[in-house]
Amino acid sequence: MSSPLTLHPDRALPAEPSIRSIARTLYSQTAGLPLVCMHGHVEASVFSDNPAFPDPAGLLITPDHYVTRMLVSQGMSPEDLGVQRIDGAPVETDARAIWRRLCENWRLFRGTPSRYWLEHELVEVFGVDLQPSSETSDAIFDAIAARLAQDDFRPVQLLDQFRIELISTTDPATSTLHEHSRLGEQGLGERVVPTFRPDAVVHVDSPDWQRDVKTLGELAEADTSSYAGFLEALRSRRQCFIAAGGLATDHGHLSADTTPLAESEATDVFRRAWNGEVTAEEASAFAGHMLHVMAGMSRDDGLVMQIHPGVARNHHSATFAAFGADKGFDIPVATEYTRSLRPMLESYGRDPGFRVILFTVDETVYSRELAPIAGVYPSVRLGAPWWFLDSPDGMRRFRELATETAGFYNTSGFVDDTRAFASIPARHDLSRRIDAGYLARLVAEHRLSEDEAAETAVDLAYNIPKAAYARRG
Amino acid sequence: MSSPLTLHPDRALPAEPSIRSIARTLYSQTAGLPLVCMHGHVEASVFSDNPAFPDPAGLLITPDHYVTRMLVSQGMSPEDLGVQRIDGAPVETDARAIWRRLCENWRLFRGTPSRYWLEHELVEVFGVDLQPSSETSDAIFDAIAARLAQDDFRPVQLLDQFRIELISTTDPATSTLHEHSRLGEQGLGERVVPTFRPDAVVHVDSPDWQRDVKTLGELAEADTSSYAGFLEALRSRRQCFIAAGGLATDHGHLSADTTPLAESEATDVFRRAWNGEVTAEEASAFAGHMLHVMAGMSRDDGLVMQIHPGVARNHHSATFAAFGADKGFDIPVATEYTRSLRPMLESYGRDPGFRVILFTVDETVYSRELAPIAGVYPSVRLGAPWWFLDSPDGMRRFRELATETAGFYNTSGFVDDTRAFASIPARHDLSRRIDAGYLARLVAEHRLSEDEAAETAVDLAYNIPKAAYARRG
Amino acid sequence: MSSPLTLHPDRALPAEPSIRSIARTLYSQTAGLPLVCMHGHVEASVFSDNPAFPDPAGLLITPDHYVTRMLVSQGMSPEDLGVQRIDGAPVETDARAIWRRLCENWRLFRGTPSRYWLEHELVEVFGVDLQPSSETSDAIFDAIAARLAQDDFRPVQLLDQFRIELISTTDPATSTLHEHSRLGEQGLGERVVPTFRPDAVVHVDSPDWQRDVKTLGELAEADTSSYAGFLEALRSRRQCFIAAGGLATDHGHLSADTTPLAESEATDVFRRAWNGEVTAEEASAFAGHMLHVMAGMSRDDGLVMQIHPGVARNHHSATFAAFGADKGFDIPVATEYTRSLRPMLESYGRDPGFRVILFTVDETVYSRELAPIAGVYPSVRLGAPWWFLDSPDGMRRFRELATETAGFYNTSGFVDDTRAFASIPARHDLSRRIDAGYLARLVAEHRLSEDEAAETAVDLAYNIPKAAYARRG
Repeated sequence: MSSPLTLHPDRALPAEPSIRSIARTLYSQTAGLPLVCMHGHVEASVFSDNPAFPDPAGLLITPDHYVTRMLVSQGMSPEDLGVQRIDGAPVETDARAIWRRLCENWRLFRGTPSRYWLEHELVEVFGVDLQPSSETSDAIFDAIAARLAQDDFRPVQLLDQFRIELISTTDPATSTLHEHSRLGEQGLGERVVPTFRPDAVVHVDSPDWQRDVKTLGELAEADTSSYAGFLEALRSRRQCFIAAGGLATDHGHLSADTTPLAESEATDVFRRAWNGEVTAEEASAFAGHMLHVMAGMSRDDGLVMQIHPGVARNHHSATFAAFGADKGFDIPVATEYTRSLRPMLESYGRDPGFRVILFTVDETVYSRELAPIAGVYPSVRLGAPWWFLDSPDGMRRFRELATETAGFYNTSGFVDDTRAFASIPARHDLSRRIDAGYLARLVAEHRLSEDEAAETAVDLAYNIPKAAYARRG
Repeated sequence: MSSPLTLHPDRALPAEPSIRSIARTLYSQTAGLPLVCMHGHVEASVFSDNPAFPDPAGLLITPDHYVTRMLVSQGMSPEDLGVQRIDGAPVETDARAIWRRLCENWRLFRGTPSRYWLEHELVEVFGVDLQPSSETSDAIFDAIAARLAQDDFRPVQLLDQFRIELISTTDPATSTLHEHSRLGEQGLGERVVPTFRPDAVVHVDSPDWQRDVKTLGELAEADTSSYAGFLEALRSRRQCFIAAGGLATDHGHLSADTTPLAESEATDVFRRAWNGEVTAEEASAFAGHMLHVMAGMSRDDGLVMQIHPGVARNHHSATFAAFGADKGFDIPVATEYTRSLRPMLESYGRDPGFRVILFTVDETVYSRELAPIAGVYPSVRLGAPWWFLDSPDGMRRFRELATETAGFYNTSGFVDDTRAFASIPARHDLSRRIDAGYLARLVAEHRLSEDEAAETAVDLAYNIPKAAYARRG
Repeated sequence: MSSPLTLHPDRALPAEPSIRSIARTLYSQTAGLPLVCMHGHVEASVFSDNPAFPDPAGLLITPDHYVTRMLVSQGMSPEDLGVQRIDGAPVETDARAIWRRLCENWRLFRGTPSRYWLEHELVEVFGVDLQPSSETSDAIFDAIAARLAQDDFRPVQLLDQFRIELISTTDPATSTLHEHSRLGEQGLGERVVPTFRPDAVVHVDSPDWQRDVKTLGELAEADTSSYAGFLEALRSRRQCFIAAGGLATDHGHLSADTTPLAESEATDVFRRAWNGEVTAEEASAFAGHMLHVMAGMSRDDGLVMQIHPGVARNHHSATFAAFGADKGFDIPVATEYTRSLRPMLESYGRDPGFRVILFTVDETVYSRELAPIAGVYPSVRLGAPWWFLDSPDGMRRFRELATETAGFYNTSGFVDDTRAFASIPARHDLSRRIDAGYLARLVAEHRLSEDEAAETAVDLAYNIPKAAYARRG
């Protein structure tokens, strides 16, 4: 039995008729706005090479850890889903078989945002009109495959179709930015911009740290065997990112600690790291120190700083050893911000040259820490619900928990944060619906006029992210 | 003035008419399903002896710490409610007077699940049609007492009336399982099954530890004065539980720590505990170690493991000294899972022979830790809202916080977790209503079809708990 | 373009029509009840001197850190808003210009309780009928200024207009209570009462500690250079507060720790503090010890104890140095209660002579710690949502998270906790609306009868706070 797949125009809007009616009106004013995608993980080469996408499984399942983790949680192996092993041992290569595993287990995704995004993509991007199931698996596979083969279904063409005005890649400090150069030559340099992500070179206990820092030095033509040279190289690379259109940096740390070390101490830890003698505590302290240092660099060069703390990465070591990072085994931990960010905010929190956007996967801090911080420090904006939280109810809770203290204008607007390019419109669409629903409730409860709500909806969808990620100075 | 007591057919369903209408339909499909009661605290002798229940107060007030704690919070003493003192000093013995104390203070229970459960019991189980109050106290007492005197109002008869397909008791590792043997002889051995709860023998600093471990050794015919013999005895007892129909183990620890000790270290701590020389830190480390060891035992013998951490028991020492445990003075604490469970999940998290069900009384971990963990590790299921959280809004928040990351099929279904036998139908009924309401909202927001919601509702009420608690292997 | 400003009669009530209809009825029964304002920060001299209020900015913007922090968060300086600098450097003195800064940035307050309160004040207290904007700024300023000049717009006259039955100031232990004496002479001694706030003298590492303790000794005619004399002085001052009508004490600590020190240890820490030799750890331990000691004093003299922990004050040191305390740079931290309060509750938790009201700015503890504690300890009441949390959705979450475990009758009723006198009616009104909405949902979900809900609404608004803050004994 195959059921039709359609997208209801009121999906993800509140059910109560008076609120829904207002929400529908608000949503209609944002649905067509351009997308500003200032935090994501699509590779620059996707645009500079502009290749055809692979098969349906290779596009929608294998690289998407939201999807694979759910299937793994019910007993499938990553190999069954085509996830490459580091040791090169064989994995499933039959895209049709992988696709079938998703369709047969479609029920697992009930109530999840992955389902919302995939349904949106199937209908809006691929023209599919059947619910995934074992019966419909092949037909849907064929329909998607046919669309993927069309010439107008290339990444650059989709930028227009998706109304993406601006999209940022995420690039290590050691990126040559070669692909961004090519994009510049192709006239896409201001539309596809890099973001500076120095995590690999500031975590001095990661296995490849010295190799990465040497590469950094070569690129920057600086001697990075010393702390001073290391900082010089970072400053230099940031200028290259700025020249390539970069607007922001991004920092993924386990904690939000920003305690600076004395210059001599930082120099010493760096030297010992170089000699392979650093302890875990020193490495952690150095990472916190570097957040403080890089806040200062942002103040100086105007790059907007993004901090994404609180994820214990690669929680299952055997899976990490077999498949590498970003395979769904990253689990959040409780994260403290009030005390941790204080050193950075003491230094730069009221400095007009500094802008930092704070993210969390620990929603307990929205009302307790992040909204109170964003609601007073002019340098701070509160980032969009992140990772596990950019779901319908997760985004609703974000507005409910943050708005009353931080307002709307101290938040930074939606970021899709995805490597699943085809899901970008679905993600922004869902965010706009949830914001419309929240604003509609305020209107229905006579806490906001409908005119104000409409202006706010447009600001949240477009003006606020443009402003939040504008390079300072 | 006495008010009538009736149960509205739409109670605990969402008020919004379009959602309620869907919820009513969904609930109607689960309301009559059998009850699977795989975690609870009814004693096996309640069924093997099948005695008449005592008076109304002895059935519904004195043994129910949800009820007594609320009355104590407003100034009544446990003695006033008939709670036995350890020193044998006199307490209230007039059941009618105790019952009156509840009825006169009925307002205290407004908005609590105790009120929902008691109303359900009064109407559905006892045929009462009056709101409790000082005026109606005696009449209600008499009505209940009359029902209790009827022959068909015995526990075993109620198993049928309540549609209980399967119920698990909770039994210490040192239980002889004598009552379960008798139940087997009575043909109830597969309907009333034991659960293995070894807390008393793994917490090496509890006052009666050595006595309990000696008893364990006698039962298992093993020399439990050594760590190796202790483990052997545990394995042996688990086999006895399996033979008696047991499907699961249960573990109540203060923290969720699962860090293993080296064999030699565990041996050493055990020896020092035996000699009365163990420190609190060692005892705590040993408890965490034993969780890891017992996860391995579950992997080997297929018993489903349940972990219930995070409660500071017997918070008020004088009350504990006077009345013993489980008197309402247990208070939750913040509980960490991501790092704490990692050693166990590193070892067995992707092992198909292992199943663990995780519970919490700290709802901040639903979206931050437990749903992300259950949403990727195939061995993990996320347990039902527990203790203070199995309330209408508590259960709703659970679905809202967990579903978007873990889905429905990584949760384990409702458990009533009660020693109040007569409240079991009320508890399952409330859970089914809340799930119906949550699913109905997804349907009304066009996030799920009504057919899928109905299938999910039935799965949550019946199929999922049956599958989650099926012994592995 | 200027928009009309009106207050919708159904504002802040739930939108769903059946719930709203019930909520409207419930609210109508509490809207006119007298206000009990047992926790706030209006100065006693406001009533004893009964001065005219200053200009609109001086009344509604400059002293209200809710308002200034939001404007500062978007780049204004405290100086722009007329906040006095400690160094006496010039700040904005043009009230009309300050007022304009609020009106021009009115959009920042969308969705915040400040907006709700200010709208209520503008319409109900000042008769304004225009939305604030750059166009309407001057007209609104003039309208307010005209009202402020009227003789009937003095604080004491407003006590009647606002229906304030009882209001408490907050006064240091070193207050002479001179203004309260004058109030007594004016016949207001039982209507405006002091609250004993000893924070300054129990935090032994604060810079002015010794000075304050000496003042304490002078007032109490005790030798406060010793710990014994210090306790004697505290007891003596508490009696003076009681004589002046005081009903309660208030304690603002960073943590909720209540661990007592041995007498000798406390004596020793005090002596070292007197000699300027105390460490931060000792100071912190002494503060926790003093909470325990002062709980004993409350048990003895019947003053109701209030504890307000969990705020990292003066988070931005430069702002604190320039402008002093209470300027919006106070940020909450995670706060533990279960273990921290245990020593105090072990000693006095079931003592009928003791009453403590617990507050938090960490809403994760409502369901995990505070409701379970308040739901069993007769000495404990759970305080109203505090500071960042006394907002529409914050107050709704409080009821949703606390009621199912603590019920209604273990909460303590609303406190406005404000220094913005003109906002007091707005704050109580909002609280009554939110409680009406929550109760109405229970009624609509058939979890409570409408009669019971109405009784509960009146109890929450009036009877419960009167009872919670009644001096014991």
